[in-house]
Amino acid sequence: MEMWFSEIHTQNVKLSIRTEKQLFSGESEYQRIDVFESPEFGRFLTLNGDILFSDADEFIYNEMVTHVPMAVHPNAKKVLIIGGGDGGVAREFCLYPEIEEIDVVEPDEMFMEVCRKYFPDMTRGLEDERVKIFHEDGLRFLRKCTEVYDIIINDSTDPFGYTEGLFTKEFYGAGFRALKEDGIMVYQHGSPFYDEDEMACRSMHRKVYRSFPISRVYQAHIPTCPSGYWLFGFASKKYHPIKDFNGKKWRERKLKTWYYTANLHIGAFMLPRYVEDLLEEEEHRI
Amino acid sequence: MEMWFSEIHTQNVKLSIRTEKQLFSGESEYQRIDVFESPEFGRFLTLNGDILFSDADEFIYNEMVTHVPMAVHPNAKKVLIIGGGDGGVAREFCLYPEIEEIDVVEPDEMFMEVCRKYFPDMTRGLEDERVKIFHEDGLRFLRKCTEVYDIIINDSTDPFGYTEGLFTKEFYGAGFRALKEDGIMVYQHGSPFYDEDEMACRSMHRKVYRSFPISRVYQAHIPTCPSGYWLFGFASKKYHPIKDFNGKKWRERKLKTWYYTANLHIGAFMLPRYVEDLLEEEEHRI
Repeated sequence: MEMWFSEIHTQNVKLSIRTEKQLFSGESEYQRIDVFESPEFGRFLTLNGDILFSDADEFIYNEMVTHVPMAVHPNAKKVLIIGGGDGGVAREFCLYPEIEEIDVVEPDEMFMEVCRKYFPDMTRGLEDERVKIFHEDGLRFLRKCTEVYDIIINDSTDPFGYTEGLFTKEFYGAGFRALKEDGIMVYQHGSPFYDEDEMACRSMHRKVYRSFPISRVYQAHIPTCPSGYWLFGFASKKYHPIKDFNGKKWRERKLKTWYYTANLHIGAFMLPRYVEDLLEEEEHRI
Repeated sequence: MEMWFSEIHTQNVKLSIRTEKQLFSGESEYQRIDVFESPEFGRFLTLNGDILFSDADEFIYNEMVTHVPMAVHPNAKKVLIIGGGDGGVAREFCLYPEIEEIDVVEPDEMFMEVCRKYFPDMTRGLEDERVKIFHEDGLRFLRKCTEVYDIIINDSTDPFGYTEGLFTKEFYGAGFRALKEDGIMVYQHGSPFYDEDEMACRSMHRKVYRSFPISRVYQAHIPTCPSGYWLFGFASKKYHPIKDFNGKKWRERKLKTWYYTANLHIGAFMLPRYVEDLLEEEEHRI
């Protein structure tokens, strides 16, 4: 038997992954959730037909959103993860003993249960006693917070569908208010290569650039993302991702990573010309 | 009508590109050559069914193999491109006025003619008066050369099939001899993500590390490559790709690029932990 799952990157490009079986399929209040077993990527989870993560490459995303701000912020104690019901980001933050509280805001309870069942290596991040889980809408949760967090991660999937509110100007403004005076927000910035992704990427940079004094973009190579290339936003009230980066301190922690290194931290902010150009164009448009 | 071309990345993963029509299909003495028109990548060329380049992303590869050694070597005049019948690499070298001679060794005449017809923006690199074309086997050509070149680019497709000889220990040894005492060789290092590619990548590093005093690996994001991630080798007799890199001089040239920047040059050598680890493992194995 041949069974292939296809991820639609654009109308004209798709990535197909051979699957061995479908382990789960269900419809939550928010979205369709499927889990597959595959020989190349191990288990992978899709939301409304788009891959959210796979066993083989989840480490790249989860490490890059966590260690980058943690190697910059000198004194982070309180973290908010919006989305993140899979526990992957929480798992990485739990590696830091100085972190006192990790609030995970995941509206979709079924999503979290599915992850607990099929991806225990990720959801073990949710079992740590510092983690508090809130089954609420991310934006609504954020609106109630003022100067609470050192780091906020927008771990939501994409700017369409029910998480759309998490990619609006209002969201970035609410994120700004919810951060302490030296807080950092990290968010998914999408993929810049295909034309349709580029537009979303431009729009996001325009909004964040207006909301935060420091706003930089960094990159990683994630095979299951469109074109294999993914950007992250680093929006900050005080700390610069390179000038305030403490590589020595991070190295001395001797954390085991598979993607992130203190050296790669710097390289991740060195972007191709075509990405630099599109970000600068949006900055000048303001 | 729906017409899709599929690039087989591994037995279990494929990238499919919607095509509008097939512009060419032919069998040369060496390989099967096809050209397609597609809405997302423009025209793209395949050799034995594998994408070699596309209009939309050829700039990444061609810039990265050219500008990286040119921003390091202080006085390059004579360049050898092994393979390179498409002219893309020659086109980039032609941007440098100090380059006096570019020898392109492309055994497959049909490949070059097909490129001239369908990819004139690349083959214009072959029309420059500094370019000399040799329709010969790359390894045989190299064996005849002693201390001739400042820079050698191994632009060959992959370590299997008729270009297999260009990925052997003998090849790297012959490359070493063909370089002047301060010469640099740049070569395709493959993609490290999928297990089967990782083995080829390890084997290559082992061979080159033995042949050259300086041997470093750098990266780029190329959407049509397996997992979207591609590595290059920088093998050198004297110059270090970072310590001897002259970013100021390169910036002052004011060359128009779409991917490479002097900043990205440095970042390209900052590799993910899993890539660092596999390279180091091979270095210690020697």
